[in-house]
Amino acid sequence: MSKLHNFSAGPSILAPEVIEGAANAVKDLDNIGLSLIEISHRSKEFIAIMNEAQSLVREILDVPDNYSVLFLQGGASLGFLMAALNFMKEGGTGAYVNTGAWSKKAIKEGQIVGDVKIVASSEDANFNYIPKEYAVSTNWDYLHLTSNNTIFGTQIKNFPVSRIPVICDMSSDILSRKINVSDFDMIYAGAQKNLGPSGTTLYIINNDSLGKSGRSIPSMLNLSIHTEKGSMFNTPPVFAIYTCMLTLKWVKENGGIEEMEKRNEEKAQLLYNEIDSNPMFEGTAVREDRSNMNVTFVLKDDANKEEFDKMWTSAGISGVKGHRDVGGYRASIYNAMPKESIQVLVNTMKEFAAQPA
Amino acid sequence: MSKLHNFSAGPSILAPEVIEGAANAVKDLDNIGLSLIEISHRSKEFIAIMNEAQSLVREILDVPDNYSVLFLQGGASLGFLMAALNFMKEGGTGAYVNTGAWSKKAIKEGQIVGDVKIVASSEDANFNYIPKEYAVSTNWDYLHLTSNNTIFGTQIKNFPVSRIPVICDMSSDILSRKINVSDFDMIYAGAQKNLGPSGTTLYIINNDSLGKSGRSIPSMLNLSIHTEKGSMFNTPPVFAIYTCMLTLKWVKENGGIEEMEKRNEEKAQLLYNEIDSNPMFEGTAVREDRSNMNVTFVLKDDANKEEFDKMWTSAGISGVKGHRDVGGYRASIYNAMPKESIQVLVNTMKEFAAQPA
Repeated sequence: MSKLHNFSAGPSILAPEVIEGAANAVKDLDNIGLSLIEISHRSKEFIAIMNEAQSLVREILDVPDNYSVLFLQGGASLGFLMAALNFMKEGGTGAYVNTGAWSKKAIKEGQIVGDVKIVASSEDANFNYIPKEYAVSTNWDYLHLTSNNTIFGTQIKNFPVSRIPVICDMSSDILSRKINVSDFDMIYAGAQKNLGPSGTTLYIINNDSLGKSGRSIPSMLNLSIHTEKGSMFNTPPVFAIYTCMLTLKWVKENGGIEEMEKRNEEKAQLLYNEIDSNPMFEGTAVREDRSNMNVTFVLKDDANKEEFDKMWTSAGISGVKGHRDVGGYRASIYNAMPKESIQVLVNTMKEFAAQPA
Repeated sequence: MSKLHNFSAGPSILAPEVIEGAANAVKDLDNIGLSLIEISHRSKEFIAIMNEAQSLVREILDVPDNYSVLFLQGGASLGFLMAALNFMKEGGTGAYVNTGAWSKKAIKEGQIVGDVKIVASSEDANFNYIPKEYAVSTNWDYLHLTSNNTIFGTQIKNFPVSRIPVICDMSSDILSRKINVSDFDMIYAGAQKNLGPSGTTLYIINNDSLGKSGRSIPSMLNLSIHTEKGSMFNTPPVFAIYTCMLTLKWVKENGGIEEMEKRNEEKAQLLYNEIDSNPMFEGTAVREDRSNMNVTFVLKDDANKEEFDKMWTSAGISGVKGHRDVGGYRASIYNAMPKESIQVLVNTMKEFAAQPA
């Protein structure tokens, strides 16, 4: 079957070269006579893969030397717990900005570990904006943010400056724009949007901020152990890391983070312009906080739903159904999404509006 | 390059049909116009994959209806922690049999959670046997076993009957022989030996034994949550689970667990017979406890090491170097290892012994 236009929120579209390279390596890794998925994680081949993946993250995101780059398991869902366990001191407090479903999950795990303060929330408006004014006490151990909210289509455009460590879940917009890594003490990101397949999670951690919680942390949740072991404390998810490495190479070969950011701006603008000018649709997030990764919009009149759904399905579009918490549509337009696919969606929206009533 | 004889301890050999099938699905899953690694985990395609993988485990291992089958992340290393958190009551005790490196890791995580009793250990003889006589108090919350010890080449042949819940790490011999699932309250197994690639861990859990620890367990470590969510609490490792599903199909199509057990007996016997009859080698594990999965042996005279290493390398053999804790050689001969590859190793050992001194 011909390739679909894949707007899935995650796991999501990957570059054709990445998919091709991953499939080939499963057949036979670099012609060594073994499949990628049957080599030892202690083999020289896999050690080279892990090193390359880590180096590419350092290069592309300009990671300072005193930061570690890890590829762990468990998704951001385990990251929520690890953030709190490794950064919240015994008897201390973690501060959270609540910008949606993923923030709420991070808060929930924080509350199991200890005391949590919610310093700001946009729940009053179904998370359609990013709160910007809030006070952070220097007595708190960290400030936790979610950079991009896949479900509600919002994104933090300017990160707050803080005197306490900032931890950020960047699962859905890592590698999509330039960030200043040293503004954060920990960044974590599930791979299955801009990085690779599901099954691994990127951690970028300021080594100097670890080991201060005073807690007895189980080994697999202890970021000091993972850092000391160079992300090889236990058997890593070989296939997922290899595929992330291929994506990182693809980002580098396609102009790096500046080019990704530029393309993402253009791609998002193309779709938001259509939403704003087309009489049949409206966006759900406030304009200044609109995500460049997940574009959420609804029909002004839901009576037209069946007709529109039929149209985009016949156009070869997949995965634009909105999350039940917002309804309508969500077009996830990650790095690997070509402008051409967005144009197909835009054209479909135009045709839909042009139909006789 | 032509295919190597892959004796790697894990990640390890998989059946050629499984590798082929996994590579094809990465290219295009069942001709749907999308790669396996870019479909949503909530898509009907992935839900069918997860259901099939779970059903095949139930069928092949004859899993009772009140047990859940889960495919989670984190390897057995996270399983060590989850076992203790979910089964050790507040103020309670976990009992462990220490049969090697993996048991010790399980014990370490148990000790972070609470009180641990080591009821038996073979550390006195560098773990070259399985302890068989030990007393278990009904006041303890569970008995933890490691069914097969990859490093030391030993395997529990007869599981102890116990009046307290038995938890068993079967990472390196799951699917290799018939087991009676109802003798265990929890079985867990990292996939990267007999099941699939690294990146997922199989859990088979007696639902009735969950929720009794009285602990506040973080979501990702809470087996009740994973069970309620049918292994879909967060984004599962799609590729790893798909490949496990292919392996499970391969086991079924190749005669199921009885046939696997029969083949594994024959394969192990072929190699152990050579070790016992060849004047140059000796086995390291006591005979009655020898593993059918990991065959450990040493040269009687280490002066011959370079010569033997040269011979097996030229025979196209890979991954037989022993673990540093035992030295010598380790041939891991999991389900997917063909008898022909073992014959190549046996022939090399014969040729080596036949050389003029």
